[in-house]
Amino acid sequence: MSKVRANTAISLDGYVAGSNQGKENPLGEGGEQLHEWMFTLKAWRESHGEEGGDVNPSTEAVEQMHANIGAFVMGRNMFGPIRGEWEDDSWKGWWGDDPPYHAPVFVLTHHEREPVAMEGGTTFYFVTDGIESALEQARRAAGDQDVLVAGGASAIRQYLAAGLVDELHLHLAPVVLGDGERLLEGVGSDVKLEQLRAVEAPGVAHLYYRVVK
Amino acid sequence: MSKVRANTAISLDGYVAGSNQGKENPLGEGGEQLHEWMFTLKAWRESHGEEGGDVNPSTEAVEQMHANIGAFVMGRNMFGPIRGEWEDDSWKGWWGDDPPYHAPVFVLTHHEREPVAMEGGTTFYFVTDGIESALEQARRAAGDQDVLVAGGASAIRQYLAAGLVDELHLHLAPVVLGDGERLLEGVGSDVKLEQLRAVEAPGVAHLYYRVVK
Repeated sequence: MSKVRANTAISLDGYVAGSNQGKENPLGEGGEQLHEWMFTLKAWRESHGEEGGDVNPSTEAVEQMHANIGAFVMGRNMFGPIRGEWEDDSWKGWWGDDPPYHAPVFVLTHHEREPVAMEGGTTFYFVTDGIESALEQARRAAGDQDVLVAGGASAIRQYLAAGLVDELHLHLAPVVLGDGERLLEGVGSDVKLEQLRAVEAPGVAHLYYRVVK
Repeated sequence: MSKVRANTAISLDGYVAGSNQGKENPLGEGGEQLHEWMFTLKAWRESHGEEGGDVNPSTEAVEQMHANIGAFVMGRNMFGPIRGEWEDDSWKGWWGDDPPYHAPVFVLTHHEREPVAMEGGTTFYFVTDGIESALEQARRAAGDQDVLVAGGASAIRQYLAAGLVDELHLHLAPVVLGDGERLLEGVGSDVKLEQLRAVEAPGVAHLYYRVVK
């Protein structure tokens, strides 16, 4: 059965990005610390054309992140943080010509735009009629595979609050950011979770939760 | 070498207690969910005069919590939440005649009061001249053993912000409280942590961090 998964790195104080996010600093101040556990991995370095790197329990976590995903949904701030930057339709995301999705990506936005086909199988579709519509289109595109709500915080929060997420996967970094964008702010205590797995890895804890409906 | 440890259960959105804490509801609304993983343990049930219960990786976490602790420090809201309740000196904590500390407990307060000796080796000392003084007294009482800052959130936060904690142990419950008292609010991004261990157990993840000085 096809699932809707949401996935993000998060700080110990609940932030998925630091303060003052912008084009020059998409992760916000200190936000790169949330992903440091990943940058040293062989799996990550290979996918970015670099040699060497570590193999540890985070390798499986990274592999699982994109395993069995047929389509992605992301918020507009994950696709491009500065409104003006991509309303002229030249902005094609942060990831270069061959984004690491290799599947349809449905971008939540208020700005209508034609789909953008990238190299490697990634196509960005722009959805202006709400989160349910984006998810329905993603489900259809994914077929039997899962849909990943890839971020940012606001998109995951909206899908959680709407009861549309089946599994929440958090990569908890031993970092206190002190400010920024919180993942679970305002989601409400109606969201009930069941812990599926907690995996220790160097510099991070991978936490897997099922959302109880 | 004697260490200063801090220990608390915490929700996925960073709260160590729910909203509207009070004498009838010391953990706040929904706060008891943070401790549910513990209530089913044989180790916990035995210490509360009940039979049966589970043995699982949380057993070790609970045993470690009080192992090698020579003295405790706690905030006034952990000792008694309603000021008037214990300023008349009849309030002796939440824990009955034989509190589960069995060691000196230094209570941070602005209210001067003579020490209260309880059964089983617990004595409450009331410290009115600040967190450093309380810790110094606790260290002296603990000798070669560790000092545990047992809570609440405010006490742990103050000791963390002052750079006085060596290890932070969090028991992360798969719960979204949505409101209440946050552990790491305002601690600041100067607090640097190193993950020591992450232990999966039923309904909880036990996370152990070293504070990098």
